[in-house]
Amino acid sequence: MTANVENFDRWIRSSFIEINTELEKLYQQQDDKANVVGIGDSLKRQLEEEGRSLIAELLREGNTDEGFDAGFDLLGNVGFYMAACRRHEITEPSREDTSPLKEASALALQLGASLGVTPRFATAHLTTHNRAINGVAKSFTSLEDEFIFNEYNTRAVLAYKRAADALFRTVPLGMSNVSVPDLLDAAYDALEDVIRLNDILFEKLDVNAFFYLVRPYYKPYRVGREIYRGANAGDFAGINIIDLMLGLCRADDSYYSQLLVDKMLYMMPEDQRCLMDCMRRPSLMDQLLQSPDSEQDSEWFQLVASKFLKVCDAHGRTAAQHHNNLVEKFITKPSQGMDEVYANKLTASGPPLPVLLRSLAKLRDLRLAAERDDIPSRYRDIETIRNSLR
Amino acid sequence: MTANVENFDRWIRSSFIEINTELEKLYQQQDDKANVVGIGDSLKRQLEEEGRSLIAELLREGNTDEGFDAGFDLLGNVGFYMAACRRHEITEPSREDTSPLKEASALALQLGASLGVTPRFATAHLTTHNRAINGVAKSFTSLEDEFIFNEYNTRAVLAYKRAADALFRTVPLGMSNVSVPDLLDAAYDALEDVIRLNDILFEKLDVNAFFYLVRPYYKPYRVGREIYRGANAGDFAGINIIDLMLGLCRADDSYYSQLLVDKMLYMMPEDQRCLMDCMRRPSLMDQLLQSPDSEQDSEWFQLVASKFLKVCDAHGRTAAQHHNNLVEKFITKPSQGMDEVYANKLTASGPPLPVLLRSLAKLRDLRLAAERDDIPSRYRDIETIRNSLR
Amino acid sequence: MTANVENFDRWIRSSFIEINTELEKLYQQQDDKANVVGIGDSLKRQLEEEGRSLIAELLREGNTDEGFDAGFDLLGNVGFYMAACRRHEITEPSREDTSPLKEASALALQLGASLGVTPRFATAHLTTHNRAINGVAKSFTSLEDEFIFNEYNTRAVLAYKRAADALFRTVPLGMSNVSVPDLLDAAYDALEDVIRLNDILFEKLDVNAFFYLVRPYYKPYRVGREIYRGANAGDFAGINIIDLMLGLCRADDSYYSQLLVDKMLYMMPEDQRCLMDCMRRPSLMDQLLQSPDSEQDSEWFQLVASKFLKVCDAHGRTAAQHHNNLVEKFITKPSQGMDEVYANKLTASGPPLPVLLRSLAKLRDLRLAAERDDIPSRYRDIETIRNSLR
Amino acid sequence: MTANVENFDRWIRSSFIEINTELEKLYQQQDDKANVVGIGDSLKRQLEEEGRSLIAELLREGNTDEGFDAGFDLLGNVGFYMAACRRHEITEPSREDTSPLKEASALALQLGASLGVTPRFATAHLTTHNRAINGVAKSFTSLEDEFIFNEYNTRAVLAYKRAADALFRTVPLGMSNVSVPDLLDAAYDALEDVIRLNDILFEKLDVNAFFYLVRPYYKPYRVGREIYRGANAGDFAGINIIDLMLGLCRADDSYYSQLLVDKMLYMMPEDQRCLMDCMRRPSLMDQLLQSPDSEQDSEWFQLVASKFLKVCDAHGRTAAQHHNNLVEKFITKPSQGMDEVYANKLTASGPPLPVLLRSLAKLRDLRLAAERDDIPSRYRDIETIRNSLR
Ligand code: HEM
Ligand code: HEM
Repeated sequence: MTANVENFDRWIRSSFIEINTELEKLYQQQDDKANVVGIGDSLKRQLEEEGRSLIAELLREGNTDEGFDAGFDLLGNVGFYMAACRRHEITEPSREDTSPLKEASALALQLGASLGVTPRFATAHLTTHNRAINGVAKSFTSLEDEFIFNEYNTRAVLAYKRAADALFRTVPLGMSNVSVPDLLDAAYDALEDVIRLNDILFEKLDVNAFFYLVRPYYKPYRVGREIYRGANAGDFAGINIIDLMLGLCRADDSYYSQLLVDKMLYMMPEDQRCLMDCMRRPSLMDQLLQSPDSEQDSEWFQLVASKFLKVCDAHGRTAAQHHNNLVEKFITKPSQGMDEVYANKLTASGPPLPVLLRSLAKLRDLRLAAERDDIPSRYRDIETIRNSLR
Repeated sequence: MTANVENFDRWIRSSFIEINTELEKLYQQQDDKANVVGIGDSLKRQLEEEGRSLIAELLREGNTDEGFDAGFDLLGNVGFYMAACRRHEITEPSREDTSPLKEASALALQLGASLGVTPRFATAHLTTHNRAINGVAKSFTSLEDEFIFNEYNTRAVLAYKRAADALFRTVPLGMSNVSVPDLLDAAYDALEDVIRLNDILFEKLDVNAFFYLVRPYYKPYRVGREIYRGANAGDFAGINIIDLMLGLCRADDSYYSQLLVDKMLYMMPEDQRCLMDCMRRPSLMDQLLQSPDSEQDSEWFQLVASKFLKVCDAHGRTAAQHHNNLVEKFITKPSQGMDEVYANKLTASGPPLPVLLRSLAKLRDLRLAAERDDIPSRYRDIETIRNSLR
Repeated sequence: MTANVENFDRWIRSSFIEINTELEKLYQQQDDKANVVGIGDSLKRQLEEEGRSLIAELLREGNTDEGFDAGFDLLGNVGFYMAACRRHEITEPSREDTSPLKEASALALQLGASLGVTPRFATAHLTTHNRAINGVAKSFTSLEDEFIFNEYNTRAVLAYKRAADALFRTVPLGMSNVSVPDLLDAAYDALEDVIRLNDILFEKLDVNAFFYLVRPYYKPYRVGREIYRGANAGDFAGINIIDLMLGLCRADDSYYSQLLVDKMLYMMPEDQRCLMDCMRRPSLMDQLLQSPDSEQDSEWFQLVASKFLKVCDAHGRTAAQHHNNLVEKFITKPSQGMDEVYANKLTASGPPLPVLLRSLAKLRDLRLAAERDDIPSRYRDIETIRNSLR
Repeated sequence: MTANVENFDRWIRSSFIEINTELEKLYQQQDDKANVVGIGDSLKRQLEEEGRSLIAELLREGNTDEGFDAGFDLLGNVGFYMAACRRHEITEPSREDTSPLKEASALALQLGASLGVTPRFATAHLTTHNRAINGVAKSFTSLEDEFIFNEYNTRAVLAYKRAADALFRTVPLGMSNVSVPDLLDAAYDALEDVIRLNDILFEKLDVNAFFYLVRPYYKPYRVGREIYRGANAGDFAGINIIDLMLGLCRADDSYYSQLLVDKMLYMMPEDQRCLMDCMRRPSLMDQLLQSPDSEQDSEWFQLVASKFLKVCDAHGRTAAQHHNNLVEKFITKPSQGMDEVYANKLTASGPPLPVLLRSLAKLRDLRLAAERDDIPSRYRDIETIRNSLR
């Protein structure tokens, strides 16, 4: 780390957080809590200028090539700055053609292009790749609810990854290898962990704090001329590896593969590679379905198929929980009560909320292998496997 | 190659070409040569249906995972089919929300996502990765001018790559290594080859044939819901590696790095990696500028700096030739003469032509290190180096 | 899979196993169970010739490039054949200068070189990458004890890998991130699984069957002119990743890094990469030791340090179990009872048994952080951490 | 670069060279120029100790993980030191069991293992990856003849790489693509450059200086317990890529693939990958031989086949030149004249010279497609192609 990189990191971990937290307090004191215009202007100026001058130093210093990890970390810091500017409407993508944060854009574009990722902060920067110092990881504010969201998000992502690893390790073994039950057990345990962690999140997280104080930092923003969509708790490969390996979702379903294409560059390069590899593998479900009838009575099939169904079931439950509990409580509900101004801001740069919710419901139903024929749900195939159990 | 992959490839190399060629002849017989609506409808139906049924077979067969090369080749074939459908307006992105070519979209998305490239045909499919069989490479039509364009495009790309390789090999040697002059000579020779090949293309290619019969196959089209911009002769890393290594263009210039971000997924994964690597290296120009004064009189500096300037000059000349000759003769001129209907089609899905031309002129001037202060041209730095020569 | 590859695989999964099993039975009927010379000569001829002719077909067909997985699988099959020939002393490295299995050597060398692994069968071929068909994985014989050894070996390897994954995921988080305790718990659970699985192996495996019927297939053999050491249950990266991440073993200890260099090409390329990456990371122990005193009273330190010690302890116990139970019962003991002829064969191509045992004991003691000062044991550092706990 | 890395590099580029040069002068003043024992003992002590203390600093500082390039460079520096100690017989592998250079061994093993290369200095460190500072690259001595050898070695390697690149780029194009002649021309030109550069080397290099003052630094030495063979001008992938792509040597020839296996880890990882990839590709020769008779009269075949033969011929000439001129003049001849003591030292740790020469002659003859039936020379296949030319 050069001194300039270190200075910038220190700022992101201190003043930056203080300014954001201060601004959130000011917004909360207003009647119209969703309005940020005209509030705390000198704090905003301070934020913009301190960030700009630190980034200008980094640009002047030039490209120091300290390897992927250092570059990715720096991209996260630049991205936090740009996201905060957008949250406080120092920049607003629908207002501008090109980001007014010229230096930040230049640095972010250079880093993104040279690292093979989107030139903005990604979920990994807040979760799996967020280095803590003396117990404190990076964040936008020092508000408890941001910490809670990040903690449970990270822990759920790590649990999902554990499940994905286990399923992926079946590939070279075939379904009937004596070691496969261990792998399915490991996947199952990990998914139960996801459920447990999401339950805690559901209980602990305050709806309003999340909706008004945390989420706004995850909005889309411009880097240079282009708008890049917001960071998303789901921007890691594990969940899709589970989808694909189980066979609940399929790479030859346009809806699903378009979703993968869209999120590809929002993931770590290593996650990208893993996911791509996965798309070329036969799923566990297809392997079971292709077992000749003569094998279906065998001990291995009965054991593996029943464990496989348990894993599918657990994966479906995480999906239902995400949609029916988390999304419902923390997004759908609070959006309903809100007035016009909010609603428009909410949908300004993504698809309108009802469209998004329909799409998420579809994903949930694929994962649940729900009895729906308007989507390529595998409910019949799951039924076939269930029926082959004694 | 499975039998289905082979069948599809055989079709792409035969009937597909015949149908396209036949349709081009019909269009040419019309007064309004730019209109394709209502002409050759049964041929169009044949094209769409034959392609669809071959692709449906491939989807049914499922993901055969025969490695990157096979997958990339197949993506090219699917892409040729989709591009031809778009050229004949069997599909039209501004008319539709989602591609009506459902099977082709599904296969293309799966392949693109699993290979780490845009889910459409790319320049590499027509040039550097276009396997010829008995002297005949793949093409849309059997028209001489398409062959000419592809041939000189490919040969120029290969020459650019040769120059890029040579420059990149200086990185671990430093500018003052005794082997660097050989590398600069190799780069220079390769760039002179580019110029020679472009000159032939300029002479041989027929303006009207190119404009009306070849270019329309390179338009943007939808894959699933998204529009992917057209293929572009410049979608390979070599030229940008030369820009960056010479230092004429810089990764910390937003204009330039946004351009790199945009084209990243249109390049082969190996080209992506090379280019990313390159973005983290100090340029030859910066290395020369940083040589202490005391070294500038040395033999090595005088030799290397003069060869460096020759390479920059040659690179600038390829850029000027591209813009002032090729783009001017084959695009700008014919667009000017054409009537409204054409003009709108021309600009339908990319930026308006004047905008595109301004952007290309900027790129040319960076490569020429032109005396312009509205862009980060290195003309002053080039001057400094020139002045240090005895 | 080409037809020739399939034929060979079918043979390896059927006749090959039958012949080996038959030969083992004949050897067992002798007084001198360790002698194989002059027994079952026609079976041996059959083995050698059937294998040779199947491999000759593969060579004639030429290099079919079906990707890494297919190539690695084929290398395993060729390797099983060569290892069986060596076990039956159809070949004997100390007798020959170059392997008389010319075709097999040629194919194995080509595959090994093109895949980036040792040109012989490796542990992965019998464990993590041993595809089962209808419940049956590949093996040398159909003897129950070979199945038992492979099953528990594979399952223990997979559990070790799970622990390694969890530890490696702490790297970008730092030790004080709130998610680290989950990762340490996952590592601990996985190591307890290793212990549980090794206990079962210890109970279930028959000493004599393992010593006389299974182990001989894992001897060193020649491929072309060179002797390649035998496959080794430990030829996977996970265990070393745990060593290094915990900090119990260190990459700058020549004894240990030489061991890593030696085993590098016996591992899957992906394991090689992982391990190399790991060697460049600070260990968890060093990170804890470097925490300023002021942090040591903090909640995070107390929690993480205590969990860290539990993981170290579990890892030490797997090592003690391996050495004091498995190696002792299945190798040291049976070797002691045996006569001269055996003893010489046993040590013919590796280091003499006492030397090997000393080296393994050293490894065990590093993992146990044993109180020894003749090796770079971390017992003092572990003590320091333990003392910082309240 | 940390300060310690920089200090060590500065030492390698200054005192280290001076001490070696001084010692060479002392050796030259002796009657028995091959004897180094008992000469310049205090210089030797200085060399050993200065190096040791600088390396000890590096070890203490710990693993700084500054990326591959930095690590590889440092490995080279450690290797230069160890090779010089061996040249001056401060260490002697036949005298010792394990290298007395404990710190250097520890660092070299850690670096080698973590980088995926042999833990000693490799040819790349002296040639393609030898960064020059103000016109001066790294070397052992400041003797003119070492400079000459390194310069022409590097330039020839770079020219070979150019040829290899060009040939490898034919793979996705097929032999009949209109761009292939350009690639064959580029390969031919590059090989002519090799010949030209080797001719200069042949003229300029002084036999005695090379034999007595340069070569001894390239001897095998121990790192830790193992002896690693000496660096070898041929330790780069380009030449083998040319062999394989042309089809003059084949990956399924044990002699040849064993040679590839042996040199794999002496090459840069990127070269390793390239070479492995190459081993899975059909050669140009095989593609031409497989062209149906009906194509052989075609224009493309006549053009491509004749250019192919020219490239083979040029490659054969570089091989003949290497063996008949360079090896003959600079090794075979001077060895013949020398007395017993020299001869033994010469062959002490590699194969005896006549064995080595026979092996090199075999390689030459493969590259020449010489009329020999005791090796898999392609002379008949070359003849077949030649006969198909009009
Ligand atoms: C307060 C809690 C959460 C809320 C309100 C929430 C809401 C959402 C929303 C609205 C989306 C759609 C984003 C878009 O496409 O624009 C989404 C996507 C996603 N979220 Fe959450 N989320 C929460 C927590 C989590 C957690 C803890 C995880 C687990 C790691 C998670 C995993 C995902 C995934 C994987 C996606 C991508 C779509 C999919 O594959 O399901 N979310 N979330
Ligand atoms: C019958 C049971 C086993 C016996 C007799 C046994 C014996 C041995 C021996 C003799 C070695 C040294 C090999 C050499 O260097 O020549 C070794 C190494 C090794 N074995 Fe086992 N082993 C057994 C089971 C296992 C299992 C189930 C595992 C878990 C995966 C395992 C993991 C290792 C590892 C990792 C090494 C490499 C040295 C090290 O890192 O500790 N072994 N074993």
